[in-house]
Amino acid sequence: MSMDVTFLGTGSAYPSPSRGASAVVLRREGECWLFDCGEGTQTQFMKSPLKAGRITKIFISHLHGDHLFGLPGLLCTVSLQTCPTANKQPIEIYGPVGLQDFIWRSLEITRSQLAFPYVVHELVPTPNQCPAEEFKDFSAKGDNIGSKEVQGRTIHLDPVEESYILIESEQIIVKAFQLFHRIPSFGFVVEESAHPGKLNVQRLKEFGIQPGPVCGKLKNGESIVLENGVTVSPSDVLEDPVPGRKVCILGDCSGTVGDGGMRLCLEADLLIHEATLDDTQTEKAKEYGHSTPKMAAEFAKLCSVKKLVLTHFSQRYKPSNLTEEGDDDVTDMKRQAQAVLDWQELVLAEDFMTIEIPMKKPKKKSVKI
Amino acid sequence: MSMDVTFLGTGSAYPSPSRGASAVVLRREGECWLFDCGEGTQTQFMKSPLKAGRITKIFISHLHGDHLFGLPGLLCTVSLQTCPTANKQPIEIYGPVGLQDFIWRSLEITRSQLAFPYVVHELVPTPNQCPAEEFKDFSAKGDNIGSKEVQGRTIHLDPVEESYILIESEQIIVKAFQLFHRIPSFGFVVEESAHPGKLNVQRLKEFGIQPGPVCGKLKNGESIVLENGVTVSPSDVLEDPVPGRKVCILGDCSGTVGDGGMRLCLEADLLIHEATLDDTQTEKAKEYGHSTPKMAAEFAKLCSVKKLVLTHFSQRYKPSNLTEEGDDDVTDMKRQAQAVLDWQELVLAEDFMTIEIPMKKPKKKSVKI
Repeated sequence: MSMDVTFLGTGSAYPSPSRGASAVVLRREGECWLFDCGEGTQTQFMKSPLKAGRITKIFISHLHGDHLFGLPGLLCTVSLQTCPTANKQPIEIYGPVGLQDFIWRSLEITRSQLAFPYVVHELVPTPNQCPAEEFKDFSAKGDNIGSKEVQGRTIHLDPVEESYILIESEQIIVKAFQLFHRIPSFGFVVEESAHPGKLNVQRLKEFGIQPGPVCGKLKNGESIVLENGVTVSPSDVLEDPVPGRKVCILGDCSGTVGDGGMRLCLEADLLIHEATLDDTQTEKAKEYGHSTPKMAAEFAKLCSVKKLVLTHFSQRYKPSNLTEEGDDDVTDMKRQAQAVLDWQELVLAEDFMTIEIPMKKPKKKSVKI
Repeated sequence: MSMDVTFLGTGSAYPSPSRGASAVVLRREGECWLFDCGEGTQTQFMKSPLKAGRITKIFISHLHGDHLFGLPGLLCTVSLQTCPTANKQPIEIYGPVGLQDFIWRSLEITRSQLAFPYVVHELVPTPNQCPAEEFKDFSAKGDNIGSKEVQGRTIHLDPVEESYILIESEQIIVKAFQLFHRIPSFGFVVEESAHPGKLNVQRLKEFGIQPGPVCGKLKNGESIVLENGVTVSPSDVLEDPVPGRKVCILGDCSGTVGDGGMRLCLEADLLIHEATLDDTQTEKAKEYGHSTPKMAAEFAKLCSVKKLVLTHFSQRYKPSNLTEEGDDDVTDMKRQAQAVLDWQELVLAEDFMTIEIPMKKPKKKSVKI
């Protein structure tokens, strides 16, 4: 089962021809989830092999324009490509309180009638996610709702887990956690459930089980009773389960709030973290609520993640292949992060880069003594 | 005195890699005026030799997203490049009622503090500018105003002239007129005053006038009295005045409302008109409030303009240099417009195309008999 992330925008503050504004796509099981949607994301989709029409969920980490201004246009363009009678499932949009009203107003002023339904679920931030003078409560919005809009949920912080539960299904759990930035920002963690192990043909033979519906039952975790009265439980015939994968995508931040983020990101297969400025500008980075390669790498190390991807670079850092004499490039940033990391893999994102997250190896069951 | 227009986006409905969303820049006297600002306009600026930081005025023809969604991001990016203590003049923004509130809300939700002042002047449309069911009155907005915002004017239609007066100075007049579209849309006419003729050195000599302040007075239209008591009027020593240039930039439309547009565009040096679909799709074009090459050419001919530029092509019409086997290209559209025109020049716009509007020849004064 393939799973990958594609970077459609790796620049901070604004889109440029060399680095689009923030946008990351996670693909899994034919679904396409978009994380942040800076201006120009729809054009970046067109330049990539990905299809914006496949998007089923959108996550907005925070309400700064370079993560948000592409969203109304993207929805309108996807709508133009959608058959109005297609009976499409609602596109689910998650983001901070204020997002629903922004989308509604942008569609309303432009008289945009979407051809598909959508729903906005809003995360309620807390004032400790940003400097006190920057916190603004956007919850006092009107009750305006679009003609194609389905009422969404208001999602509060679970103060014990220090996280927000966005999606909980048998296959996948998506949670958010709190980041500290100039305005409240969130990180998202997508975690698969363990994939059941394969049926072991040899063991099936030993029990005398022929291929058929009973195999499906065993695979789905049900025990069966054979004609000879013997009970076969799934663990008798299934190989070791394959642990699910975990991908963490963080919004802009100079750090996390509480320990929720650290716990959720623990042993992630992939951690996508911002590194707006290099380590020589740590004070400035922190002042603007941003991170440096060292800060990102320290969090990755703390969480024992397998692979760290840095992104959201200041537009001054040109991608390596576009660097001209005198330009800042990202080589120094790579060195700065690497100096902190142990065995973790490190990647510096560029627009249109795709990173696969391979299936894990089956986890050995503990041996009963 | 140079004057030119540059097309930063020539596609309709949404931006694509081959045609950006609507945006035209008029440059004159070091000033840079932007007409419409679809998503991605700021990136198109970066790809062109033009500088978004030079923009002094912005005109939005109508409130559809492909003409508007790039505006908040463009303002934010220009702000990042602006020194907060630069004491910059306000950027003046003109567009339909509802524009001020959209800009305010987009900046507010993203907590964007602009480094320069701006002012939004709103044109009040009338219900006959669109199908009755599409007309929506956006005037009942709140009184929200940004921290860097200067209160703008509300500009009503002059029912006699059938136009809106936006700017009236000694050098230039800008007016708007009403177009018919799916939602109210406007056309803009920029007209220079006549440039005074040059001082004729031979005639100055005949009067015994030496170079100095008196020459400036004559050039500025003042008469002077020589020491010998002779009165010299400007017309005695100035060459023929040079007529001003006229550029007309129309928003989306399937036609004009009333005769204001025709009168204002009469004998324009340049008329920029949309041609979303080709003549074989006239019914569909009209249904969506759009024009075809024939419709645009007929208006250009009616107004006896010198040069017609077609733009705002459906994304199905690829620019000539990007056409692949089986693609629609714009060649047919050129032929369709040409079939209507007489002596008028015809140009089909492409992204990053610049068209100069040369100074005119001096107009011969009428000879007194």
